Amino acid sequence: MHIPAIPGPSREIRRQAEEVYLSKTKPAGSLGRIEWLGSELAAIKRELPPRVENRTLLLFAADHGVASRGVSAYPQAVTREMLRNFARGGAAANVLSRLYKTNLTVIDVGVIGEPVPGTVNSKVREGTADFTIEPALSTTEAERAFQVGLDAAYAAQEFGAQLLLVGEMGIGNTSSASALLSLMSGMSPKDTVGLGTGCSPERLRHKLAVVEQAIARHHEVRGKPWQCLEAVGGLEICALVGACIGGAASSVPVIVDGFICTVAALIATAIAPDARPALLFAHRGSERGHRVALEFVSATPLLDIELSLGEGSGALLILPLVDAAVALMLEMATFASAGVSTKASDDTA
Amino acid sequence: MHIPAIPGPSREIRRQAEEVYLSKTKPAGSLGRIEWLGSELAAIKRELPPRVENRTLLLFAADHGVASRGVSAYPQAVTREMLRNFARGGAAANVLSRLYKTNLTVIDVGVIGEPVPGTVNSKVREGTADFTIEPALSTTEAERAFQVGLDAAYAAQEFGAQLLLVGEMGIGNTSSASALLSLMSGMSPKDTVGLGTGCSPERLRHKLAVVEQAIARHHEVRGKPWQCLEAVGGLEICALVGACIGGAASSVPVIVDGFICTVAALIATAIAPDARPALLFAHRGSERGHRVALEFVSATPLLDIELSLGEGSGALLILPLVDAAVALMLEMATFASAGVSTKASDDTA
Repeated sequence: MHIPAIPGPSREIRRQAEEVYLSKTKPAGSLGRIEWLGSELAAIKRELPPRVENRTLLLFAADHGVASRGVSAYPQAVTREMLRNFARGGAAANVLSRLYKTNLTVIDVGVIGEPVPGTVNSKVREGTADFTIEPALSTTEAERAFQVGLDAAYAAQEFGAQLLLVGEMGIGNTSSASALLSLMSGMSPKDTVGLGTGCSPERLRHKLAVVEQAIARHHEVRGKPWQCLEAVGGLEICALVGACIGGAASSVPVIVDGFICTVAALIATAIAPDARPALLFAHRGSERGHRVALEFVSATPLLDIELSLGEGSGALLILPLVDAAVALMLEMATFASAGVSTKASDDTA
Repeated sequence: MHIPAIPGPSREIRRQAEEVYLSKTKPAGSLGRIEWLGSELAAIKRELPPRVENRTLLLFAADHGVASRGVSAYPQAVTREMLRNFARGGAAANVLSRLYKTNLTVIDVGVIGEPVPGTVNSKVREGTADFTIEPALSTTEAERAFQVGLDAAYAAQEFGAQLLLVGEMGIGNTSSASALLSLMSGMSPKDTVGLGTGCSPERLRHKLAVVEQAIARHHEVRGKPWQCLEAVGGLEICALVGACIGGAASSVPVIVDGFICTVAALIATAIAPDARPALLFAHRGSERGHRVALEFVSATPLLDIELSLGEGSGALLILPLVDAAVALMLEMATFASAGVSTKASDDTA
């Protein structure tokens, strides 16, 4: 598999961005992580001010063989039903994309059934195999799904995207993500399996047993990112890994949504460590493994408001903070231009 | 002092709002605190969906006699200089108000110097007295400043505001707020005094000593909200208390900004406990006493991104979450309308 070269962020541009904020009429650093965010966007994009008005949410969807084991509270058919909901504009991802002026591209990497008009048909296969009894994907399938994500990131950029967001949909995919996280981190499934879309205590126990079974079957791939993706990965997760690396390779920041996307980002950084600085983590959600995955990639997300939906909803919800970071950089007066006195000299150290 | 009657939130409307979210195509509760926010707005406003497009930030400014004791890293003149900056549109509050489509009203409750065109002249007096040697305000002055805030809340509503935000500006006002918090909570100034606009370690020690001196002088007012305001309060803090109560009395939600506003909200709830449900706390900032004050009013804010600017900046930064909560309520498809399957029956308990 060819992994593109990644230029990495510009320290010089980051320093310049920090100086812009310092010159503005406010105490140094008083806008906290908003200033951090603006400086990182500038550094990743290697431009000051960073342009972010044209942005695209890449929402990857696929089905999971393990859904047949009853790990989700919802029937597998919901994946395709939600594809139709996305196409008609009725899902949370649609509402937030409209509200925050974001292009939404829904990419079907392997949903079971006929392609849904209004979504991009990039089916690699219709659903993965049940990873409790065999590998979820062949080597070729995992690589093709990765390439779908990589190409989607490049295509979005060609059409003008200055900022990428990644999201996902797929009944059963928290089980896949939990298994991936356990295999990559060495953490017990007890620490990586959570409620997903909200299952009963009985179903949670069953889901945990299913993931433990998968870990036992595939233990030999521990710590090997590509092999983990083949063993238990989802098609949409492979695509998310590709999109993270594609964004980083193009110096386009990638806003990472929830648990499943964070696990994909973790795998992307295992494959291409240089991709890490381009990945901005949106939120810490209520799914158990999300916190574990965030610690593993040393991320401190911007929001912590108990989200667990996926679909890129958490990534969308930080866009107004992105817009604020850029607007403050562009529009605020400086101490000099506004004629505002600066700090007493003994406090400026 | 006449305190208006407060109708309180509608439990029935809150329940209806929660049912609207439940009907939407997403797992129950998966939008976390966004759903909480939308339901609270509906309950406070007693309308479903809650209308929030027309909103006003009331930014109260005043000077503090204690600034002469060198408690701030900035000279006292900065209060009026910032008033001019607000009037010209160059401050962070201006940039964020434009970005998030919010009316900004800057109200001068007692800044030293001539009134600044473009701001509302409601000067009660020019700066408070130095509270380390005498009461900051007379009873009449504190009440007049409170009335300025109450009237501003009513006036904003008359001009169409469906949502209020409160913010402040005043060199020296973190010292006033820390003294108020210590007197109201019984906490030591060691737990309530922080860096303010960012002072040196030497200045922080001095500021702590000044606040300790104030607490020693005024200890007899402990726990008495009106007397505390007279003893150490700022004019803008009295006005913030009035605005919180004015919003609550009109069934208009009040988004409370940072440390100083949270202390004002704490005093508002001490004066009028029924006002508490109408107050929505925007963020947990980096100022030491902010956390203490939030715990005292049992608030879990939406953002935690190390803000310490004031000016209503934190309150403004949660407006996109408010807009999201309402848009999701209005625009998302339901399971029925989208033809999406619901949960398996054993998980719906």
